[in-house]
Amino acid sequence: MKIILFGATGTIGKCVKEVLSESGHEVISVGRSSGDLKLNIEDAASVRELYKKIGSFDAVASAVGEVSFAPLTELTKDNWTNSLNSKLLGQVNLVQEAIPFINEKGSFTLISGILSDTPIAQGVIATAVNRAVEGFAVAAACELPKSLRINVVSPTMLEEAKESYGPFFPGFQPVAGKLVAEAYKKSIMGIQTGQIFKLH
Amino acid sequence: MKIILFGATGTIGKCVKEVLSESGHEVISVGRSSGDLKLNIEDAASVRELYKKIGSFDAVASAVGEVSFAPLTELTKDNWTNSLNSKLLGQVNLVQEAIPFINEKGSFTLISGILSDTPIAQGVIATAVNRAVEGFAVAAACELPKSLRINVVSPTMLEEAKESYGPFFPGFQPVAGKLVAEAYKKSIMGIQTGQIFKLH
Repeated sequence: MKIILFGATGTIGKCVKEVLSESGHEVISVGRSSGDLKLNIEDAASVRELYKKIGSFDAVASAVGEVSFAPLTELTKDNWTNSLNSKLLGQVNLVQEAIPFINEKGSFTLISGILSDTPIAQGVIATAVNRAVEGFAVAAACELPKSLRINVVSPTMLEEAKESYGPFFPGFQPVAGKLVAEAYKKSIMGIQTGQIFKLH
Repeated sequence: MKIILFGATGTIGKCVKEVLSESGHEVISVGRSSGDLKLNIEDAASVRELYKKIGSFDAVASAVGEVSFAPLTELTKDNWTNSLNSKLLGQVNLVQEAIPFINEKGSFTLISGILSDTPIAQGVIATAVNRAVEGFAVAAACELPKSLRINVVSPTMLEEAKESYGPFFPGFQPVAGKLVAEAYKKSIMGIQTGQIFKLH
């Protein structure tokens, strides 16, 4: 299978790349500033160009998207817009622009996160945007042409990131990056669509 | 109780106004182009001015926000941005800007809709944006100061709107506007917070 992986050099992306490569798949890594190809996912025209250049592929996997963290009373319009443009509309671009190029029965795997279900301090935007990503996938699954599938992986904090993020997730049990990567594999190589694979 | 109702002249807003007024509450109606006061909820500065002018109040109820409907493959960046600015960020403005003015133990009641749970054709943005509104409320409930509360009312198609919207909601059972209005009353006069009151 030929899989395009966005965010391949991040903590999750690295694990996904390893698991998929071990399974014998061809993984094309895309990152904002590193990887086989470089790209800002917020620029729909560039996303389309990249897909056109690659030509044909079987799956798009995303481990990208940033959201702002701040107390509710201090959230700015820019915090909201930047987060929506990155994690929601950036991932929407990855799906919409791929449709003409991706092979029949191909799949999309996006990323949300535990905060969609479980708020933490300063995480209002994360909860809202993660839920929007999940809603997009659930609804898009019903409309995708070419027998395409779409799922979302929703990880909790990673063991690999516990040292830096632990204080923001009190009592949350971290998950191994490898298990998150296995959820991507389940989405890509399985038959389900419109699902949220939760690692929490 | 002094309640500010946004979208008071819409199908739902009218019912909410009636139910709340019957209960003896003072309802200040705000609409984009009609009502006691006129306002574009997307303009945070105007929202703040309006609250300042009213001075003190006990509840904010929202029955506003528009989303775009189009097939997945035809959705544009503008469709997304307009919908997010209206139904998500417009309602976020109504909450954030009210915090300095609303009375202790006051409440916010926002609106989402059945499409957050149940996709319909061309409704991808509605599902995503409604979920984001719900996520915002669930997370904001944990951070609001002054013992403030926040809930979301999620109605299905209204009986009053069945003639125009029925074809888009095949097999959906409509709900009476009065019952939706009662959910607003439950949110405003009850004690719950971070809840989604579903009328479907």
